[in-house]
Parts: sequence; structure tokens; C-alpha cells
Amino acid sequence: MAKEVTSRAENYSQWYQDLVIKANLAENSAVRGCMVIKPHGYAIWERMQRILDDMFKATGHQNAYFPLLIPKSFLSREADHVEGFAKECAVVTHYRLKNADDGSGVVVDPDARLEEELIIRPTSETIIWNTYKNWIHSYRDLPLLCNQWANVMRWEMRTRLFLRTAEFLWQEGHTAHATAEEAQEETVRMLNVYAEFAEKYMAIPVLKGVKTASERFAGAVDTYCIEAMMQDGKALQAGTSHFLGQNFAKAFDVKFTGKNGELDYVWATSWGVSTRLIGALIMAHSDDNGLVLPPKIAPVQAVIVPIFKGDDEFQQMKPHCQTIANKLRQAGVTVKIDDRDNLRSGFKFAEHELQGIPVRLALGPRDVQNGTVEVARRDTLSKETIPQEGVEQHVAALLDDIQNSIYNKALQFRESNTLCVDTYEEFKQKIENGGFIMAHWDGTAETESRIKEETKATIRCIPLDEVKTAGKCMVTGKPSAQRVVFARNY
Amino acid sequence: MAKEVTSRAENYSQWYQDLVIKANLAENSAVRGCMVIKPHGYAIWERMQRILDDMFKATGHQNAYFPLLIPKSFLSREADHVEGFAKECAVVTHYRLKNADDGSGVVVDPDARLEEELIIRPTSETIIWNTYKNWIHSYRDLPLLCNQWANVMRWEMRTRLFLRTAEFLWQEGHTAHATAEEAQEETVRMLNVYAEFAEKYMAIPVLKGVKTASERFAGAVDTYCIEAMMQDGKALQAGTSHFLGQNFAKAFDVKFTGKNGELDYVWATSWGVSTRLIGALIMAHSDDNGLVLPPKIAPVQAVIVPIFKGDDEFQQMKPHCQTIANKLRQAGVTVKIDDRDNLRSGFKFAEHELQGIPVRLALGPRDVQNGTVEVARRDTLSKETIPQEGVEQHVAALLDDIQNSIYNKALQFRESNTLCVDTYEEFKQKIENGGFIMAHWDGTAETESRIKEETKATIRCIPLDEVKTAGKCMVTGKPSAQRVVFARNY
Repeated sequence: MAKEVTSRAENYSQWYQDLVIKANLAENSAVRGCMVIKPHGYAIWERMQRILDDMFKATGHQNAYFPLLIPKSFLSREADHVEGFAKECAVVTHYRLKNADDGSGVVVDPDARLEEELIIRPTSETIIWNTYKNWIHSYRDLPLLCNQWANVMRWEMRTRLFLRTAEFLWQEGHTAHATAEEAQEETVRMLNVYAEFAEKYMAIPVLKGVKTASERFAGAVDTYCIEAMMQDGKALQAGTSHFLGQNFAKAFDVKFTGKNGELDYVWATSWGVSTRLIGALIMAHSDDNGLVLPPKIAPVQAVIVPIFKGDDEFQQMKPHCQTIANKLRQAGVTVKIDDRDNLRSGFKFAEHELQGIPVRLALGPRDVQNGTVEVARRDTLSKETIPQEGVEQHVAALLDDIQNSIYNKALQFRESNTLCVDTYEEFKQKIENGGFIMAHWDGTAETESRIKEETKATIRCIPLDEVKTAGKCMVTGKPSAQRVVFARNY
Repeated sequence: MAKEVTSRAENYSQWYQDLVIKANLAENSAVRGCMVIKPHGYAIWERMQRILDDMFKATGHQNAYFPLLIPKSFLSREADHVEGFAKECAVVTHYRLKNADDGSGVVVDPDARLEEELIIRPTSETIIWNTYKNWIHSYRDLPLLCNQWANVMRWEMRTRLFLRTAEFLWQEGHTAHATAEEAQEETVRMLNVYAEFAEKYMAIPVLKGVKTASERFAGAVDTYCIEAMMQDGKALQAGTSHFLGQNFAKAFDVKFTGKNGELDYVWATSWGVSTRLIGALIMAHSDDNGLVLPPKIAPVQAVIVPIFKGDDEFQQMKPHCQTIANKLRQAGVTVKIDDRDNLRSGFKFAEHELQGIPVRLALGPRDVQNGTVEVARRDTLSKETIPQEGVEQHVAALLDDIQNSIYNKALQFRESNTLCVDTYEEFKQKIENGGFIMAHWDGTAETESRIKEETKATIRCIPLDEVKTAGKCMVTGKPSAQRVVFARNY
């Protein structure tokens, strides 16, 4: 077990917190609820950004940038939206400080009060649709497919690094379409992009589904989501894609002239994922020794550690490490050599395990003699000694294998922690063990809220890809068209 | 001349404004002083980011992310810093809105007042050095080399798209070192990175120099800068790199234990460039027909336009365009085909010129017959017809030639608008024509401020690379060690 990291069995929540801190991913800042994302954490975010950005561009989207601040009145334009976001936002009221009269520092200058207060964006639908009004006139201006990489702020009361912070980084796509069908297609297209990203790159299996009305994004007609299972059996919403109907077009009066010459309101979608994904990544794969990163997301895929006694051996070892590093780089592997001469190799190994580097290569004097190298994989902690000849193919194949193994392990875990339940009695009992419970529900907000109150479980989604079999609501006995997914969640 | 774009001769300032709007780079938003960066403008910023980020990483820096909000009291810790930044900042005082009693919308909830006001970062030295305090203990933790890509906000009274906006995007490097020498080396290293980026990629020649005390960054010991000349002869500061001495380490009590076991304050630098560079790019190269983009920065380097009458010819032309596009892509050229069938080619040509696409290829039925293609370059607007065979080598070489030509044109312009002046009389006369004036100055803030008041010219920098010849101040006759660069500026 890594030094000073609580084990998962002892306290899962503390384990998560310890890992984020000890693996140098992030820390709390002097500003309540706002985190500092440290270089190792940010490098993971950069990998995610690069991959997602390429996927967005491949599906026809362009990046743009909209203002950080939103006039207070914009929030009120869409009735549901303001209910959802006005409760928890940072409000800018003044634009200047001045020296305090008593020389104690600076104070807000009362003469510099804004006429209308400005809100730090909790999400950008309102400012963007106010802008789109001037960009869209005819069907020829549609579809409009923009994405923004930005920081947003929601004044959360209880915060946890990456999972729920006042400020977080995210991307938000905002698209405009001529028809409801096109907008719905886009909503599902981006849900699929998120699902592919989660499964293929983050190695996290996800359930795709639709949210119930009470879990919908404030202002959406439908919210689609991907839901992942963490190692404690709790669900984590890993991405959402919203079909906004004409709600924001109506709120901001955005109309277009169709091919037939008629005016109509524009149809909209929005979709986003955030630095929360880093939290998901940690909680899905990591262990008591530290992070386990899927090779496709790991900023460094392989580390080479020279094993030596004294400076002579160290100098001897260096060119051999360099040769192996070059071979790996030519095979497309991201590699670094850990040639710090003031640390023992045992210490280094523990650090690399804590940081989640997928493959470690260790090279000692005997390896140089024998033309071998020791290869260790982070996910299973298993080791083997292989010939240096062909090391690059070996490591490349190993990285693929690790990527697949991590995904399969998570999938197996989810499958063995997903069960169908038909009575509310059994439900209340099983939900205590965590996991996903597939159960029938009568479709009413009343039943949903009663279940939540009594069991702390929410409907994560109405799944899209499951076989739909009708049944009876486990609580009320009323008819149900299909099972929905219940879980406790982050 | 592009439609609805004022000519430079008529009104340079209006020409700039028209170009930013008509070329779809940016526009003003509903929030005073905050711009919307539109997809074409943002694509240019993305090119700049990618290149700079690679250069930062090649010089050993890592990215990280620090909070958007800064506690008000942090600003006061460094005496000069607060004077420079407290005057113009957005202040968050509340964290919640509530429904107005009269049902008119939402109002600030008076019960949700923050104990200490928070400032939207105008720059991040204070929050970062408050964080570094916990990261730095020993010389082994140094150097610490971080960069952040972020939005910042300064409540400017007069704003102009890209050049001066309340919110802007930038990168800010913040480094910590064990010795003054190392920090000074870093300051100059990053100045050189900026100069290389400006000259090699943006094709803008720059003067490297040091700012006078009155133009220094608030909190710096020395501010280094690169200064570029725009087409109206005004100077534009295109990047700054600050040697901060131990000022912020002292303000935030950041000490380290040296090799010898002694405690000392850490030495610091910070350096940044912003979306202002897009303004510089426009004003350095563009003309009355629209943008002129250097190929290394252009999001699209070549556009292919099929020339056709009727759908039959259009369908015939398509595969030929595709073949040429593939050849160009294989040669590393970023290319798009403009196959919109509802616009005349003359309209398309004008649009591509307005957007600054460096090379345009036009392909008509006769070209298909003859195996030729018409190639036009944006910078000179000249055209030639060449064989399709080898078009990729031709275009690749042409892009290099355009990159060099644009740079040389800007360099020649600067050289022919830079002159040495020895009397204040002549200075007052010549400064009216714009350009850089190299003159002797006695080194006092009094003289500097008198010159600024009487001529609107400021000392852009004390140049680093010029031959230092002593002389006498043109105003006071007092001794001067070298000529400094005067100009009116943005």
C-alpha cells in the first residue's frame, strides 16, 4: 500500500482524497471550493482535451469563445434555467477597489457599482443564444456547431476535488438546427462521442440513457447521459447531452427563414464533460498503491529506471536507458527516464505506482550484460524479464493489453454489481450494497422522490440500449414500460 | 477592396475594426468590454496556442491551473502590485441570487454576502505564490516551471477587439528559482521564445528590450518586452517577460533551504502573451482586401475552388478537386475544398481573400482537360497556371515563400520607418509621421513623462540587441548611455 494512502476497504472516500493529494493531481486553494489542478492532474486533462477536441472536429464542430460574465437579466429569460442556476452563482457587483481610508489595505469602491450585476457563467446557454440571435437568419446559417473550452462556476456548498468544485474546467457544445429531428440526432451523436471516449480511451464502460424529468438539465426538453460505476458501487454521471427544443431560441428570439420562406424558432442542443472525468478515472481503476491510468490517457506511458550502485555504474547505465527510450519513442510510446541520482529505486518504483505510469522498465548491470530488461505492469503489478531486442513491440503490445484489461475489469465489476429487483423490500435491502439496480418504476415524480427519500437512490437513467420488457412498478404496482437504472450516486 | 471594409488610407482604425468584424474574427458581446471570439478568430488562437505550448514544453515547462478568483487581501500583499491592479478589477461580493419579491426576475440575495470579496484574476502572481508556498521547501523543489492557459479580466475603460478587452485569453508562466541569475536567465529565455514565435511563425519582426521603470509590470524588478511596428507606424507590445526578484516570495513568505542548509527567499519570473497577438497579426500584415495570414498561423493554408456551370460540370469537377486536396494533405498542407454550389466563384474568391487563406487553387473544365490548375497567392494577389503534376511541391514551396515574403515586407517597413533623431525639435516633428524613433534620453522619469505629455510618444524599450553608443539626452542634454526606442503605441 502506498505510504499515507488510506486503503479502499478502510475508507473509500478518504482513499480518494488521499490519492488526489499524494499523486499530485490537485489540491484545495485559498478560495473556498476552488481547486488548484497540479501539473500531473493537468497533464491528464490535456490528454482528455486533445482526444475529445479531435472527436468534436471530426464530427464537424468548431471552437469559439464566449464571455465569462453574463448579465443577471439573461438568466431570467428561460424560466426553468433561472430556477436551476440562480441559487448558486458568483455575482460581480463592482468594478474597482480603492485604498482603505485607514491604510489597512483595499476596499470595494462604492462609486464603482455596476448598473446591472454580472454572473460568472455557471453554463453558457443564455449568453450564447443571445449571440446566436445575430448569427442566424436563414436555413443556410444552419446547422451552427460550436464548442467552447472554458471555466465555469457553481457555488456548491459541499465540494470534493474534481468531483464537485465551485470552479471547474469543461467543454460545452452549443448547436443550432433547422429541425427538431436534426437537433435530436445531434444530441444522440454527441452522447455516442462521449460514450466512445469513456470506453475506448478512459477504459470506463458506461450506460447510455435518458434522465427522468426531475434530473433533467434546467431548460432542456430531454437530457441524455452516460453513467459509470465506481469501485464502491456508486454511480457517477460522466457526461450529458441535452436536447433543448426551442426553449432558448424562444427566450432569446432566435428565428430563421426556412427553405419555404417561413419563419420558425431554431432548435438547439448543448452537451458537456468536465474535469469531473478525472475523478471518474481515479475512482474507476485505481487501487491502494495509487493511480491506475489507462495507457491512452496516461501522460507518460512508460518509465525507465536505471538500477545502479555508485556514479560509475550510473554513467554506464545511462546510454543503455537512452537506447531503449529511443526505441520506445519510435514505436509511438510516451516515455521518460527517471535518472534522479539521489533516490533509491524502491522509492522511485513506489512513486511511479502512485502516479499510475502503466509500464515500468528497470535496467541493472546484469541486464546490460544479458541484454535483458525487467518490465512491470502497473495494473496487475506483475513483472517479467525480457530481451532488449524487440522491447518496443513488447511494450506497445503490453500497453494495448493493459488498456483492454482495465476496461474488462471495470466491465466485469459493473456486471457483477448490476441486478434486477422486482420488490421494493428487496430493493431497500440490495441498495445498501451499492451497485446498479434495474427495477420497474411507474414513471411518476412522486414515486421517484419517495424512493430517493427512503433509500438515497436516484434513477440514474432510463437506459437506451437495454431490451425493453414491460412490468409493474416495484413501489406502486402500476404499469412500467421498461426497467430503469437505480443507484446511489456522486 | 473588400466590400464594406474601409481602406487603410481612409481610416486605419476603422479599417481594423471592419476587418475584425467582416472576417468573422470577433465581435462585441452584451457585456461591456467582453468580446466573443468567433470560430475563425479562435482557430487562429488555437494555432498560436499549439505552437507556443510546444515551445514552452520544449523549454521544460508544465501546464497547471489556478483559481479564477483571488481573495481581495492577496492583492494588497505586494505594494506595487496592488497599485497596478486594484483600480480595474471585477469584484465578486455575493454568491446567490433569489427571486424578486415583485416577480420581476432575480435580484442579489443580501443574505449571501461573502465575508471577504473575491477578485476575478487580472493576473495570477498572488494566488500562485500563495500556492507555491506549500510546494517549495528545498532547493530540490527548484526550479519550478509552470504555465497556465487562462482567461483574465481587467476593467478597461476604452476597449478595442483583441487589442484591449476587459476579458482576454492568455498564457501566464510563473517560475521559481534558487538564484537571481537563474531567474534572470529564465526571463531572457522566455523573451527569446516570444521573439522567435513572433518572427518565425507570426512573421512579425520584433525589437527586444527592457522597459523603463514607469512602464514596468506592477511588482517586477525588470520587465522585458518585444515590440512590433504596425502598418500605421504605431508600436504594439506583443509579449512581456518579468524578472520579479524576491518581491512575491517575500509578500507570500516563500523560502527554501539551499544546498548549504541556509534559508532564503525564492526568485521569480512571470511572462505572458495574449489574444492581443491576433490584433498584432491583423495590423502587421493585412490589406484593404482583408486578412493576410502567415501560412504557419493560418488555420487553412490552401483552398480549392471548382469552377463550373451547372450540376453536371460540378459533379465532374469534384473528384479532381479531391485528388489535388489529397496530394496537398500528403505534403502536409492544411487544405479545404469550397464546394458550396449556391455561390459564384467571384464571391468565394473575395471571401477567401477577406479571410486571409494564403493560397487559392481554382480548377475549371479547361484545367481538367489540360491537366493544369490556377494558383493565386493572397499576399501579392498574383496568379499563375501550373501543371497539376507536382502541384503539392509547388504549393509547399509557395507557402514557404509567402511566409518569408510577409516577414521581409514587415521588416522592410519597420526599417524604413525607424530613424535616429538628436534634437527634441526634430523629434516632435518626426513623431507625427509615426514609426520608431531612436533617441538619447537622460534616464529620468521626469523627462520621460514630459516627452509623453508633449508628444504622446512613450519609451517602448531600452533595446537589448542594438550597438550601445553614448550621447546626450535630446531634451535635457544630460548624458545618455544608449539610444532608446520612442513611439506612439497601442
